[in-house]
Amino acid sequence: MQPARGAMANFRLALIQLQVSAVKSDNLQRACGLVKEASAKGAKVVALPECFNSPYGTQYFKEYAEKIPGDSTQKLSEVAKECSIYLVGGSIPEEDGGKLYNTCTVFGPDGAMLAKHRKIHLFDINVPGKIQFKESETLSPGNSFSMFDTPYCKVGLGICYDIRFPELAQIYGQKGCQLLIYPGAFNLTTGPAHWELLQRGRAVDNQVYIATASPARDEKASYVAWGHSTVVNPWGEVIAKADTGETVLYTDIGTHDAAFPSLPNRCESKARKAAARPDYSSLLPCKEAATLGESKVQASFSPGSLIVVTKRNILHESFSFLALLRASCALPSPF
Amino acid sequence: MQPARGAMANFRLALIQLQVSAVKSDNLQRACGLVKEASAKGAKVVALPECFNSPYGTQYFKEYAEKIPGDSTQKLSEVAKECSIYLVGGSIPEEDGGKLYNTCTVFGPDGAMLAKHRKIHLFDINVPGKIQFKESETLSPGNSFSMFDTPYCKVGLGICYDIRFPELAQIYGQKGCQLLIYPGAFNLTTGPAHWELLQRGRAVDNQVYIATASPARDEKASYVAWGHSTVVNPWGEVIAKADTGETVLYTDIGTHDAAFPSLPNRCESKARKAAARPDYSSLLPCKEAATLGESKVQASFSPGSLIVVTKRNILHESFSFLALLRASCALPSPF
Repeated sequence: MQPARGAMANFRLALIQLQVSAVKSDNLQRACGLVKEASAKGAKVVALPECFNSPYGTQYFKEYAEKIPGDSTQKLSEVAKECSIYLVGGSIPEEDGGKLYNTCTVFGPDGAMLAKHRKIHLFDINVPGKIQFKESETLSPGNSFSMFDTPYCKVGLGICYDIRFPELAQIYGQKGCQLLIYPGAFNLTTGPAHWELLQRGRAVDNQVYIATASPARDEKASYVAWGHSTVVNPWGEVIAKADTGETVLYTDIGTHDAAFPSLPNRCESKARKAAARPDYSSLLPCKEAATLGESKVQASFSPGSLIVVTKRNILHESFSFLALLRASCALPSPF
Repeated sequence: MQPARGAMANFRLALIQLQVSAVKSDNLQRACGLVKEASAKGAKVVALPECFNSPYGTQYFKEYAEKIPGDSTQKLSEVAKECSIYLVGGSIPEEDGGKLYNTCTVFGPDGAMLAKHRKIHLFDINVPGKIQFKESETLSPGNSFSMFDTPYCKVGLGICYDIRFPELAQIYGQKGCQLLIYPGAFNLTTGPAHWELLQRGRAVDNQVYIATASPARDEKASYVAWGHSTVVNPWGEVIAKADTGETVLYTDIGTHDAAFPSLPNRCESKARKAAARPDYSSLLPCKEAATLGESKVQASFSPGSLIVVTKRNILHESFSFLALLRASCALPSPF
């Protein structure tokens, strides 16, 4: 069974496009100051950018890394409690057991840590003459997906490069998330090419809101972030978008749905889901074997690719591997 | 193992944005004429639009439906053989066993039928005041995915609404397709909102070319097609796009890759795949249980959602259900 998505309560989301410096204490102080400012303006869910307490770069991660809990996350917990908000703490370099991670922590209105997401897909890129970066030189990948509940909706988390992997967003959508937040620092090559496209695609495919929080652009940094923190609605429309400088981007999620001309079209979502259900549960490779006139018809599938699904229930819930695992793959449950 | 994607040979693709009338014989004659024209201009793979021999509408499907093989597909076979091309025959209403389908046939240079794709996801939409349509009133859904081999690359097929389902494109990408062709007739509501977005998203997510062939726009028709047949490269760039009228859209696939400034960035594709492999194979829900300061940390996951994967091989191949089924779900194989 797919978790029912309840009616989404209205709330104000704030994305903090922080100008990150090399001074950690300054980054923390200014981040917390902007969180308080956002809260004062009514934000109930606030998100910081990727790597908000450290410059972004493999040469910095070890120096800036902290345990979790640690100084930075303690400050996030305190400001979340002080403001009584849900705070998605962007990400920080985390040290654990001698390994480094790019890690997002989330704190609730009582200061409790609700989720800890370690970036799953490390950013290793080599665009000759444009950009080279290899997070895996110093970082280890996370191995979990991460959601948290709010009174407004369930929220799923990814960090930057995680957004390129549609499977993660599909999991979140299937688990009932209505908002996915990706702290992320795209760059001047991938930013113009894919930053908005990926967000709009994830939104439409999964009928969810997508929000990204980028650091502000610093042309003097070794890695220049794209900026343009964005919010996209489930119809794939960009409903808020920052420029490149430091700013707080506010979006009243849900409240203006009726004003978006196409959002009543979300009924399509139901049709889409109805259409999906019976089809994928019985999807087989084409195996044409008829003849047409005098031409011999060729099946273009190798025998090994042909699968016969006899247990409909194995695919009853959804298309994703999690559903499959739950369904009947006989994996042990710890409960 | 993911099928290796060989080097892609250069070839000319032609998308025929046909002006479809209510006269089937006329549609067939003009379609075949344009196929010959495309072949004369060097096209090696030619695609017709969705429902190219019939007006698009549930009131027409029964009247225009044919068996396969039948008159329309016979003509497609003959013209493919005459021109020695790969012909993706858009779609036609098909009758089989008392049921109707929206079906795409593909013919090779020898006239043989290489694939028959029945639209999997029926187009049931209700956008109040804008568009209502319910294919499922008269059509039955297909239950197979469909690929065919060419000397240039492997091609995957979908029809129109099929493009909204990322899972289908993921299957094709994982099976080594480098070009996905979707004959499709979006409309004046969903066309401007999603036609290009969905194509660019599928392209970038799966690092494949996407091509769509729409009927030309007919403002007097009961269903007004969006037109704008399009080709998108694996970097998500629109490299060819028709207007709304009848036309043949030519694209030299592969040959201009070096001229697309961002296509050398396909090296990112390798990083993307490398990044994907180790991560998803061990993806678990986050299960934080630490404490932070004096705050009690709450796990936001219900026990039932926690899954422990002990058999790494079950996810070794890929994320999709097909891989899972192949891997170790103990489904019977017919071979």
